[in-house]
Amino acid sequence: MIIVMKPSAKPADIQQVIARVEQFGLKVHISEGEAHTVIGVVGDTQSLDQRNFEVLDGVERTVRISQPFKVASREFREGDTVIDVNGVKIGGRGIVIMAGPCSVESRSQILEAAHIVKEAGAHILRGGAYKPRTSPYSFQGLGEEGLKLLAEAREATGLPIITEVMGASEVPLVCEYADILQIGARNMQNYRLLQAVGKVQKPVFLKRGMSSTIQDLLMSAEYILSGGNYNVILCERGIRTFETYTRNTFDINAIPALKQLSHLPVIGDPSHGTGKWDLIAPIAKACLAAGADGLMIEVHPRPEEAWSDGAQSLKPSRFERLMSELRALAEFLGRPMS
Amino acid sequence: MIIVMKPSAKPADIQQVIARVEQFGLKVHISEGEAHTVIGVVGDTQSLDQRNFEVLDGVERTVRISQPFKVASREFREGDTVIDVNGVKIGGRGIVIMAGPCSVESRSQILEAAHIVKEAGAHILRGGAYKPRTSPYSFQGLGEEGLKLLAEAREATGLPIITEVMGASEVPLVCEYADILQIGARNMQNYRLLQAVGKVQKPVFLKRGMSSTIQDLLMSAEYILSGGNYNVILCERGIRTFETYTRNTFDINAIPALKQLSHLPVIGDPSHGTGKWDLIAPIAKACLAAGADGLMIEVHPRPEEAWSDGAQSLKPSRFERLMSELRALAEFLGRPMS
Amino acid sequence: MIIVMKPSAKPADIQQVIARVEQFGLKVHISEGEAHTVIGVVGDTQSLDQRNFEVLDGVERTVRISQPFKVASREFREGDTVIDVNGVKIGGRGIVIMAGPCSVESRSQILEAAHIVKEAGAHILRGGAYKPRTSPYSFQGLGEEGLKLLAEAREATGLPIITEVMGASEVPLVCEYADILQIGARNMQNYRLLQAVGKVQKPVFLKRGMSSTIQDLLMSAEYILSGGNYNVILCERGIRTFETYTRNTFDINAIPALKQLSHLPVIGDPSHGTGKWDLIAPIAKACLAAGADGLMIEVHPRPEEAWSDGAQSLKPSRFERLMSELRALAEFLGRPMS
Amino acid sequence: MIIVMKPSAKPADIQQVIARVEQFGLKVHISEGEAHTVIGVVGDTQSLDQRNFEVLDGVERTVRISQPFKVASREFREGDTVIDVNGVKIGGRGIVIMAGPCSVESRSQILEAAHIVKEAGAHILRGGAYKPRTSPYSFQGLGEEGLKLLAEAREATGLPIITEVMGASEVPLVCEYADILQIGARNMQNYRLLQAVGKVQKPVFLKRGMSSTIQDLLMSAEYILSGGNYNVILCERGIRTFETYTRNTFDINAIPALKQLSHLPVIGDPSHGTGKWDLIAPIAKACLAAGADGLMIEVHPRPEEAWSDGAQSLKPSRFERLMSELRALAEFLGRPMS
Repeated sequence: MIIVMKPSAKPADIQQVIARVEQFGLKVHISEGEAHTVIGVVGDTQSLDQRNFEVLDGVERTVRISQPFKVASREFREGDTVIDVNGVKIGGRGIVIMAGPCSVESRSQILEAAHIVKEAGAHILRGGAYKPRTSPYSFQGLGEEGLKLLAEAREATGLPIITEVMGASEVPLVCEYADILQIGARNMQNYRLLQAVGKVQKPVFLKRGMSSTIQDLLMSAEYILSGGNYNVILCERGIRTFETYTRNTFDINAIPALKQLSHLPVIGDPSHGTGKWDLIAPIAKACLAAGADGLMIEVHPRPEEAWSDGAQSLKPSRFERLMSELRALAEFLGRPMS
Repeated sequence: MIIVMKPSAKPADIQQVIARVEQFGLKVHISEGEAHTVIGVVGDTQSLDQRNFEVLDGVERTVRISQPFKVASREFREGDTVIDVNGVKIGGRGIVIMAGPCSVESRSQILEAAHIVKEAGAHILRGGAYKPRTSPYSFQGLGEEGLKLLAEAREATGLPIITEVMGASEVPLVCEYADILQIGARNMQNYRLLQAVGKVQKPVFLKRGMSSTIQDLLMSAEYILSGGNYNVILCERGIRTFETYTRNTFDINAIPALKQLSHLPVIGDPSHGTGKWDLIAPIAKACLAAGADGLMIEVHPRPEEAWSDGAQSLKPSRFERLMSELRALAEFLGRPMS
Repeated sequence: MIIVMKPSAKPADIQQVIARVEQFGLKVHISEGEAHTVIGVVGDTQSLDQRNFEVLDGVERTVRISQPFKVASREFREGDTVIDVNGVKIGGRGIVIMAGPCSVESRSQILEAAHIVKEAGAHILRGGAYKPRTSPYSFQGLGEEGLKLLAEAREATGLPIITEVMGASEVPLVCEYADILQIGARNMQNYRLLQAVGKVQKPVFLKRGMSSTIQDLLMSAEYILSGGNYNVILCERGIRTFETYTRNTFDINAIPALKQLSHLPVIGDPSHGTGKWDLIAPIAKACLAAGADGLMIEVHPRPEEAWSDGAQSLKPSRFERLMSELRALAEFLGRPMS
Repeated sequence: MIIVMKPSAKPADIQQVIARVEQFGLKVHISEGEAHTVIGVVGDTQSLDQRNFEVLDGVERTVRISQPFKVASREFREGDTVIDVNGVKIGGRGIVIMAGPCSVESRSQILEAAHIVKEAGAHILRGGAYKPRTSPYSFQGLGEEGLKLLAEAREATGLPIITEVMGASEVPLVCEYADILQIGARNMQNYRLLQAVGKVQKPVFLKRGMSSTIQDLLMSAEYILSGGNYNVILCERGIRTFETYTRNTFDINAIPALKQLSHLPVIGDPSHGTGKWDLIAPIAKACLAAGADGLMIEVHPRPEEAWSDGAQSLKPSRFERLMSELRALAEFLGRPMS
């Protein structure tokens, strides 16, 4: 961390900053510039709140030098983290596709969806039993009944299942059924939930919050990792910007950036990232070209009858066509799908 | 809700949309424009997910006409909601000031802070016992011990206390101590928590999420209200934008906008809204001039020693001066402080 | 400027950075941290492009320490800049109000508007003769005819006039008529235009671009100032964010921030900052409370017949009422209107 | 266009809206909803400013139904626009690569750069002679001398050249040298410049402004097209968001969205879109996968000595490697490079 003093800072101000730094058992390194004195803080500053120094007299601002995440960082671990989910390897050489409906709506719907995505070549079945909805009056998911139907769909197809968990107290129940726990974008900084999934060993699929920076996402991963669960999968699903033509702005830069900064697998979600079914295919391909380890795609047997997110779900024939294009692209990129 | 058809939409597409609308027991009203056919949906569309219609063939987009919130809306309730907290009226004629440190750090610190803000004229004491921190390695709050110290500070000063609750399972415990439950910005769409505080009768102070629209904030309020707890206080605390000079961009427009759209009290938080102690005073005054019902301000006996948010906390002498200016301004505006 | 090396940087990388810095006649100051070596660059780095150093091997990133603006900065000038426009002092003790229609539409319209705002107490008349419109098919302004009508309105009322100039080649013509040249938000980084108005001595009213940071605005002011025209007035008029309820998000923080960083006068524009006539009054008051030196407000004799921006224009009776409230508030704040 | 009335609107308000619509020679179509009356406006509303209706009593808001751009739209033109620049076809089957340094710095630099990009397989040479710089103290380009050097590089390599024009008065001069005129992001809404390039027949490369929506970009294209110059190339180069790890957020969604909405060619600029040389390759590939017609990439013989944008320029060996990867990818995608 460095502390930039104002041009008007007095020697006594600098002394006060030094004294404060030393109270934390850290050392300083002082550099006098043309206008500004810059105080470097040497030592382990990980748990320091840099903004606390900004209130001292004569301080203009502070700048963090080290990344605030440790276990999530590339430096922490040699090689990429590969997570094995019932034989499906996420983060390894091959591309992994997670697909299925936004919500579990009925036994026949989820079974039909599971067979469709399985036959098209997807590796993991998605489906929401607990749905975070903006409106309290919207369908909130089938709850445990939905989890049971997902488990039945897994039985029928052999596909591992991923489903969202919305609260810390639901973690044990969802763990009984799911192969991967999903944390939704709105809960990315629900720290009680992050702490709860940090204490189990199920893989966690962590979606980037819609106004979260890349660093924020990695800090939320750090909560889970530092709790002892090392099976974290990162997901870019679009951020909120001024653009309104699409539901979100898919931050394609985040894919290679996350791969540079972290050893964790990175998945792209073009359904949420665009909000429009007819933009899913080009963005799905862009994700693979940019280095994503896989994709999450919403597919519904009849999107026009979906209870949620129909607008960003593919119908079966379009998903099949997309899968055959993605299979060829993955092969071309040297990351063949199993 | 209206459904805008593409210029290329065929009669069969329009028929399909009509059929789909009628399945929900709603009626249509068709308007043929130069290029676009527009289908108006008549009836109660509150629980309808408009985006589901966007997947139908020939549909270009949908536009919601009615506000999706009901109980939170101005139309729902004649007059402003006034919430009485141990005699302090929030949302009434007088301006209300909530002040105190970011975190409860020790007995002496919170007691000292409580006396300082009380003597300066604040009406409610704030202080965090459970702290949502970006880093798992930062101070996470004193927990129940912090709640007890807050209660002791209330005893000593007579000030009601407001403190944050981070998870649904902590609601009963926090209710035992707090007079107002605070939901932080990161938890604004933590629906399990909203549901939990909707079932108690303690006033809830709901902070706007940093990437939440005004409508999103009112929808989160709607979760609490529709659960049966009508004591909701809204808080504007700044949103995330491209500007980096300040920690957040304080959305001053939101204050009169929320007062127009809703009957709920609206509080401004210039500490988080700026992130800089030397911008708190002008933004605090701007909030009152724009029609806020009160303010939440971070104050610490010695900000340079604060464990969190020192950079955006006022020291006692500055808070006293600000309070005397705010008192005069409130008086001028016809909203005198008690 | 400081240069942060990667943890993996080699001694040769550090040597290369030092050599590169020294080529610019600057000195280095090296500080070894736990993980990162930090190289401080000492000397006049104003004209240096910091990003050029980011391409050197082993460099993680660079951080600018000094503000990149000079003449616009508080440090440059003792006291506030006060600009005298035909006797109206902008940036001095008193609050200044600029008001009038978005566009000059006809002789009778602008004369009527001028008399209305004059009688209500405004100090300067605004009106657009050249209109930057998003659509090439929209009304583009009356051009020189509009300038002549503005001059006639000045004659009739004695009010100085402010009007927009859109291109460098139009500067001489607009200078013949206008008392203040307005640079619109979309042209804030039109450097040819900034250079052109930097060479005349007419006061320039520089509106913040809708995605410009506070620093960007001051850098654009610096273009004008460094050209030799010291009569620059800054205007906050809202920025573009994800919020759609209002046309722009008025960045109230920018008002005290600009007053801290610069000696130039700062004006708020609540018409553009909200886009809604019924939000103008509360935001206008908030601007004064936050320390603005004045306001620009759109007023039209009959907003419902305006050719542009009717939605954010006040009708005469509402403007009169607002002016009487603002006069009292300015008085209260110790900044009486003349 | 539709006009949504407030629930509280009176019959007289509705009558006033109808009368106002009819003044423009348009018809209305009225639809009574549960709470809101919705007035559809039928006829050519292209030149109508929808916001003018928002000031009428009882109006809640207005919604535009038709796209405000005409000539730029898919509906206007059967098939894609293909622009032939000295034999290089932009917007056709094959992918086109534009490459070269940010600025022309010297004769040897631009000639060396031209040979490097030519040999690596690029089709068009880029280089700035007039540079829009945030700081008036930064290098502003070599001006006409730079244009001459670019022409010499074209002579030497046969590559057509693209260079930026910053002001309307410079258009004739730049036209003498350049094969394609570039409009930079900061000038995307400099309407005088758009009008000037609309009157010549040189192809125009229009970069999206950093806070411009997809619709804004198409409206700026419309300015040029409606002026009579049909040779417009659109460029996505990243938008400004809250993310700070990258210089801009590359809006990959915009690529397929623009191809859907318009017949104009779409080029991606991963140098500006990321600001980091080590993210250029993955984003360049993502652009092709998403359907871009080509790329603009900054390449410098020695980026560590570049006078501008070194951080986002590739060095020759990296560019060569990237070109060979892009060539294979373009081939795979059925869009081979010539």
